[in-house]
Amino acid sequence: MRLTEIGEFGLIDRITRIVNGSKPDIVVGIGDDAAVVRSDLRKLKVLTTDVMVEGIHFNLAYTPFESLGWKALATTISDVAAMGGIPLYGLVSLALPVSWNVENVELLYKGLKRCGDVYQCTLVGGDTVQSQGMCFISVAVMGEIEEGSVVRRNGAKEKDLICVTGELGGATVGFEVLESGQGKDNFPDSVSRFLEPKVRLQESQQLVKEMHVSSMIDISDGLSSEITHLCQQSDCGCIIWEDQIPVSKEAIFWSRGHEKAISAYALKSGEEYELLFTVARTEFEKWRNSTKNKKNVLNITVIGEITRKEEGICSMKGGKKKQLVPDGWDHFHK
Amino acid sequence: MRLTEIGEFGLIDRITRIVNGSKPDIVVGIGDDAAVVRSDLRKLKVLTTDVMVEGIHFNLAYTPFESLGWKALATTISDVAAMGGIPLYGLVSLALPVSWNVENVELLYKGLKRCGDVYQCTLVGGDTVQSQGMCFISVAVMGEIEEGSVVRRNGAKEKDLICVTGELGGATVGFEVLESGQGKDNFPDSVSRFLEPKVRLQESQQLVKEMHVSSMIDISDGLSSEITHLCQQSDCGCIIWEDQIPVSKEAIFWSRGHEKAISAYALKSGEEYELLFTVARTEFEKWRNSTKNKKNVLNITVIGEITRKEEGICSMKGGKKKQLVPDGWDHFHK
Repeated sequence: MRLTEIGEFGLIDRITRIVNGSKPDIVVGIGDDAAVVRSDLRKLKVLTTDVMVEGIHFNLAYTPFESLGWKALATTISDVAAMGGIPLYGLVSLALPVSWNVENVELLYKGLKRCGDVYQCTLVGGDTVQSQGMCFISVAVMGEIEEGSVVRRNGAKEKDLICVTGELGGATVGFEVLESGQGKDNFPDSVSRFLEPKVRLQESQQLVKEMHVSSMIDISDGLSSEITHLCQQSDCGCIIWEDQIPVSKEAIFWSRGHEKAISAYALKSGEEYELLFTVARTEFEKWRNSTKNKKNVLNITVIGEITRKEEGICSMKGGKKKQLVPDGWDHFHK
Repeated sequence: MRLTEIGEFGLIDRITRIVNGSKPDIVVGIGDDAAVVRSDLRKLKVLTTDVMVEGIHFNLAYTPFESLGWKALATTISDVAAMGGIPLYGLVSLALPVSWNVENVELLYKGLKRCGDVYQCTLVGGDTVQSQGMCFISVAVMGEIEEGSVVRRNGAKEKDLICVTGELGGATVGFEVLESGQGKDNFPDSVSRFLEPKVRLQESQQLVKEMHVSSMIDISDGLSSEITHLCQQSDCGCIIWEDQIPVSKEAIFWSRGHEKAISAYALKSGEEYELLFTVARTEFEKWRNSTKNKKNVLNITVIGEITRKEEGICSMKGGKKKQLVPDGWDHFHK
């Protein structure tokens, strides 16, 4: 059987069946943004890893080496944030063509280090080897998480509000601008979001502590895909109010200029690394009241609500309800 | 500047300068077999990662997928053993050509799982993505280590004995047999050692607890290369008694059949994953007396002694002393 027949998520299911044994020290195993383990009395540990492959995840024709380093670590830390954890230590696995210049490897590590400094994740080791033809980077991060702060993908409940941090669309615009080879200066926020995504780490801590969110996931594959994961794992349905999805100004401008539907950017743009989460209405109201008239309040938007499973995974646009088709990246489906 | 000009270890030096900041919670940073961090009060955590790239580290023409999985995890656990730690959790980063069969990925994971079961290292997560053309596997392991049990590469002292576990040579013989495409059945131990190396995990625990070894490293690049790392980091010299190096029967038989010097296998064979360590003479004598007439005693051999730095890194053969040239694998030197 070919990988293309079962796709990335079919493969993960099969791997999970081979690997998973339930052990009392494993709080969250395979299938969430990161694993959570109980290895000491004080705090839980969170463990996660991400891979980036040249030609699949990045194109060196327009990706500065320093940005590549930043992104490799940032995307891994984003998984820690999506669990409610904070990162502590990173390990870098790097396979490089021998033809690379030393200076470029140094720039890559400067980007890794800069990202680690911003999010307080110390690089403690790694392995650097030769590859034939292309570059692979894998970063593993260990972090920690307080006992009551673990937020899984499976905690959404009927009537919970669905929210998202920040604005979407920019990462795809950045990608399209860079691929087109022109207009980079007109879309600085989008290009920067694509090359060096920020991690919603502080936001995650606030969401967990101030709003007691019921489930959370980071948007790496696109909103429609992530909300589908979240609903499937929470065994519920949802309705996403398409017109409420916050889309960046640059994404609106770009989509108009290219005669594309804004909703495509809102629903499908991956590598955004914003947080998608659900929260009980009462918790949300409490939080809203407590932050009234305050400055520097979290930038979050309510974009839908959780429904019963039977109602399906749907979106609403202009008063019309339709089924939401997950349209994100699958590494093995054609 | 090209990577080939500075080599793997020149690159690691440069990376270390960019990344390393001294932080009080980092007990051992970049440059040893694994990192050791103090993240809770009870025990230290040990973190390490290893990469394997198709065409560089393995050849799928003769490597069973299950063995590939075993080896990817075993080599990482070996780094934990070389620090004196025990493994707890593993993360698997996998980049695969879409053309792979699902069954082969499942076999790979069965090998990972079987290795994890043997050494009690639970696979808790990972990332599986598409690659173009070749397979890349990186395994990160978190383990733990007691406060007094950390064994670094830099602890060797003048007059310490140099010892090695098990017998060497088999991994290279296994590789050469498999590459030659014939005679596999005549060298079963060597082939098995190359495809599915055992980890000296229990031995490491005994060495740390019963013998208080002063420095330790696992033999992944060949004895001459590893003893050079160990002496350089410990700021000392050594003399290796070549005729004392334990070489496997199959390696002796193979080298004779191919008119190669046995010493080449003894000194240069990489991917052995035996432990090379140093121990104070008094500790060694105490241990030897305490294990007299006992069964199941550790299989270790004294192969040399640590000298002053000025005496250099040398070997002795047939009463003749000469400089030992590190001759292991360097990923970026030609």
